[in-house]
Amino acid sequence: MRRILAQRRWTPLGKKWLENCRAYSVPASSKVVRDERFATLDDQDIKHFSGIVGSKGLVVDKDELEVANTDWMRKFKGSAQLLLRPQSSNQVAEILKYSSSRRIAVVPQGGNTGLVGGSVPVFDEVIVNLGAMNSIISFDEVSGILICEAGCILETLDKFLADKGFMFPLDLGAKGSCQIGGNVSTNAGGLRLIRYGSLHGNILGLEVVLSDGTILDMLSSLRKDNTGYDLKQLFIGAEGTLGVVTKVAVLTPQKLPSVNVGFLACTDYTSCQKMLLEARKHLGEVLSAFEFIDSFALDMVLKHSGHRHPLPDAKEKFYLLIETTGSNQSHDKEKLDNFVETVLTQGLVVDGTIAQDNTQISNFWHIREGIAEALGKAGAVYKYDLSIPIKDLYNLVEILRERLGGLATVVAYGHLGDGNLHLNISAPDYDEKLIAKIEPFVYEWTAAHKGSVSAEHGLGFMKAHAIHYSRSPETVELMRKMKAMLDPNGILNPYKVIA
Amino acid sequence: MRRILAQRRWTPLGKKWLENCRAYSVPASSKVVRDERFATLDDQDIKHFSGIVGSKGLVVDKDELEVANTDWMRKFKGSAQLLLRPQSSNQVAEILKYSSSRRIAVVPQGGNTGLVGGSVPVFDEVIVNLGAMNSIISFDEVSGILICEAGCILETLDKFLADKGFMFPLDLGAKGSCQIGGNVSTNAGGLRLIRYGSLHGNILGLEVVLSDGTILDMLSSLRKDNTGYDLKQLFIGAEGTLGVVTKVAVLTPQKLPSVNVGFLACTDYTSCQKMLLEARKHLGEVLSAFEFIDSFALDMVLKHSGHRHPLPDAKEKFYLLIETTGSNQSHDKEKLDNFVETVLTQGLVVDGTIAQDNTQISNFWHIREGIAEALGKAGAVYKYDLSIPIKDLYNLVEILRERLGGLATVVAYGHLGDGNLHLNISAPDYDEKLIAKIEPFVYEWTAAHKGSVSAEHGLGFMKAHAIHYSRSPETVELMRKMKAMLDPNGILNPYKVIA
Repeated sequence: MRRILAQRRWTPLGKKWLENCRAYSVPASSKVVRDERFATLDDQDIKHFSGIVGSKGLVVDKDELEVANTDWMRKFKGSAQLLLRPQSSNQVAEILKYSSSRRIAVVPQGGNTGLVGGSVPVFDEVIVNLGAMNSIISFDEVSGILICEAGCILETLDKFLADKGFMFPLDLGAKGSCQIGGNVSTNAGGLRLIRYGSLHGNILGLEVVLSDGTILDMLSSLRKDNTGYDLKQLFIGAEGTLGVVTKVAVLTPQKLPSVNVGFLACTDYTSCQKMLLEARKHLGEVLSAFEFIDSFALDMVLKHSGHRHPLPDAKEKFYLLIETTGSNQSHDKEKLDNFVETVLTQGLVVDGTIAQDNTQISNFWHIREGIAEALGKAGAVYKYDLSIPIKDLYNLVEILRERLGGLATVVAYGHLGDGNLHLNISAPDYDEKLIAKIEPFVYEWTAAHKGSVSAEHGLGFMKAHAIHYSRSPETVELMRKMKAMLDPNGILNPYKVIA
Repeated sequence: MRRILAQRRWTPLGKKWLENCRAYSVPASSKVVRDERFATLDDQDIKHFSGIVGSKGLVVDKDELEVANTDWMRKFKGSAQLLLRPQSSNQVAEILKYSSSRRIAVVPQGGNTGLVGGSVPVFDEVIVNLGAMNSIISFDEVSGILICEAGCILETLDKFLADKGFMFPLDLGAKGSCQIGGNVSTNAGGLRLIRYGSLHGNILGLEVVLSDGTILDMLSSLRKDNTGYDLKQLFIGAEGTLGVVTKVAVLTPQKLPSVNVGFLACTDYTSCQKMLLEARKHLGEVLSAFEFIDSFALDMVLKHSGHRHPLPDAKEKFYLLIETTGSNQSHDKEKLDNFVETVLTQGLVVDGTIAQDNTQISNFWHIREGIAEALGKAGAVYKYDLSIPIKDLYNLVEILRERLGGLATVVAYGHLGDGNLHLNISAPDYDEKLIAKIEPFVYEWTAAHKGSVSAEHGLGFMKAHAIHYSRSPETVELMRKMKAMLDPNGILNPYKVIA
């Protein structure tokens, strides 16, 4: 079910998409210029790096570099001439120490599945890919604590854990390619957050290499550890700009055998909010996902994916995908039945279905997870990943729909239980007039409603300029001080986050 | 039940305890001397502070100062001549700005229920008590997000939330007195951690005043917010040494109606560990506490509290208190029954009882929560709050018991589900020979087994010297740099944490 979905790799989105994206490529449409304080690689540098990682850890092949220079959306493209694949933390340390001394800019890279251009070079930064550091170091079956290297693929870890009766407390579409070091560095949120919480709670320890080559061993594997400042937290979500995550200790929950999924239709957004309250009340401890899809998003995915409407007679504006995960199938079914009966009686839901088998569960999730790809197939798309207080969340969608009129289709879906809106503006082509109507309006509206301009994707290169919409000047100033203290030469993932 | 227990205030432990503690008072038994770079208060300072907080916010009364200078255990005692009760973040900012300019040392104080001397002055630091800043600012019933001032008492918040069908994701014995600002500053763990996770996951936003008077608004009230570095995390568990927490945004879970508690006896520690695995398997999503009590701890509490043995015929070495919390009483009962049947069949448990009503639930929790007070009544006690990988956790207790022979009684209990051991050495009197057999042995053994010398109590003044046992030199060095950057004059809670 979820597992099968998860195995789907992120795939390129086709020629149309690529052509559209060119209009948006970097740095053509950007005012960012290369920081000339950074050195340009010379033969001596390459020789030195080769001495650190050996010939198999050093990539200069054009085709391989082409792939590593380009982000998954093919929206951002760098021009790195060198990629390094260290095999140990010591090699990472040697690479950074030398890079600092020579002021060579580097971009740490995991599975390169990010959506904000954070894991590819902007110019000629050296790519340091962690993929070769993919060992599982230890797993404690009593505590459920896993320790592994940063290059482990999320799905590989989840499979390893499943064999032992545990699961990874994070799930996202890119699971088959993304690496845990990248997940930590972007503080990835995903589908399980409503149940298992954020990585700030689940990551127990990290090993991080600082820009001067210091290996910071904060690899505590304890559930509780109040010994001084919890410095590892700083590197969770820092997008590789403060240090390179090389090892991770994570608390993993028991894998539970019972999964149920409902697909329900609501006439209005107020009902969706009330549904969340009722779901919390009736499903309580077994609620594991509360996703919403508006009719524009559903139409989009049905049109481009070939999926059938789960509720063929429903013509409602809103659909909810609600999942429970628990230890006892009959208990969970009963809870879900009570919930459905209540919300039907209250008129919050006008139509709905509960998946009867794993195929149906899989189909419902395919619809939810297929929206991003469908948007790519439909034409040009402007993507915004926003956190907005739940009561205000859909107002933005409606206001924007009115503002744009017939210029574009506004498509909304996301993790409603977490207040996370994926707002997409789909149009035949990229258009300066259209973008001028969207930005900075979307950011300003979000800021005015105490939202965040980046819920789970991070700032990367795409939104580095937008940080002020969600953070106070004093807070941004302190971030700058942190950056200056930890990376005085600014070599780690420059032009990103607080560029 | 839990609520009734929670209402119990921390009470002084009697004369015997006080007398014993004198041998341990500060700075007599400590080599720490007053940092003479700090100014001594003069009339001009008091006049200035009075201008900030007004006459009702300024305390110079000897009796009130006596209370505020002394920690709950009456083990640590400062000699502050002034206590300030700011009524707003701006007043806190004015206080710190002036204190920085005059290099006046301050100690931020909440409910003063800490156990490591972190919330009282060591010498004559000015006490800044947040108790007057106790407003609930907002609560969102859809998202469950609460925003309040730092001086709110934990129990008050929990009651406020209960009326709305929510609960605070943190519970601890001092709930009736401790303040949320202090809970955040010490990263309090407590009884609900196994279910709801740490404050690093549940705290969504903070307002913090820095030592120079800057008010850092990081009061995001969003479940997901990946906009730059998550700086608020630094102040969670920093024990007031990096800034003063003035406002808190926290994610609160739905309050669930079904609570069950079992009290079970095991013959050996291996069975206790297997019980944890079985509890996770059978109780899954409803498990909310997994506490262990060894026979020495049980004897201690039965002797000094008047409670009856819940299992009068059991003469086992280990007892477990296991709690479930869920949304459906019959489901939870069934899960608990299946669990008990399994562990009885497997021989992991030799005796046990499930509470039949709220009185029994309350009694079982009273036994668990009464151990600390019983130890105080029994005589001198050396307390250690350790995190140790679960498989090794009880080895330390047995080794220490052998090491100390008849000199003292080694009493062990704690949050086994979290790997958190409360190790107590009870003796008729404090004794230099005894302490020499305990320290640094306990710290060294803990460090050698990859444990932490402070699981949930923090370092405070008591364990500031022990940080190296649990943190690498590079990590401590970076902590020092953080401290120097955020508090260049070192006025915030000096002599604590990394002193």
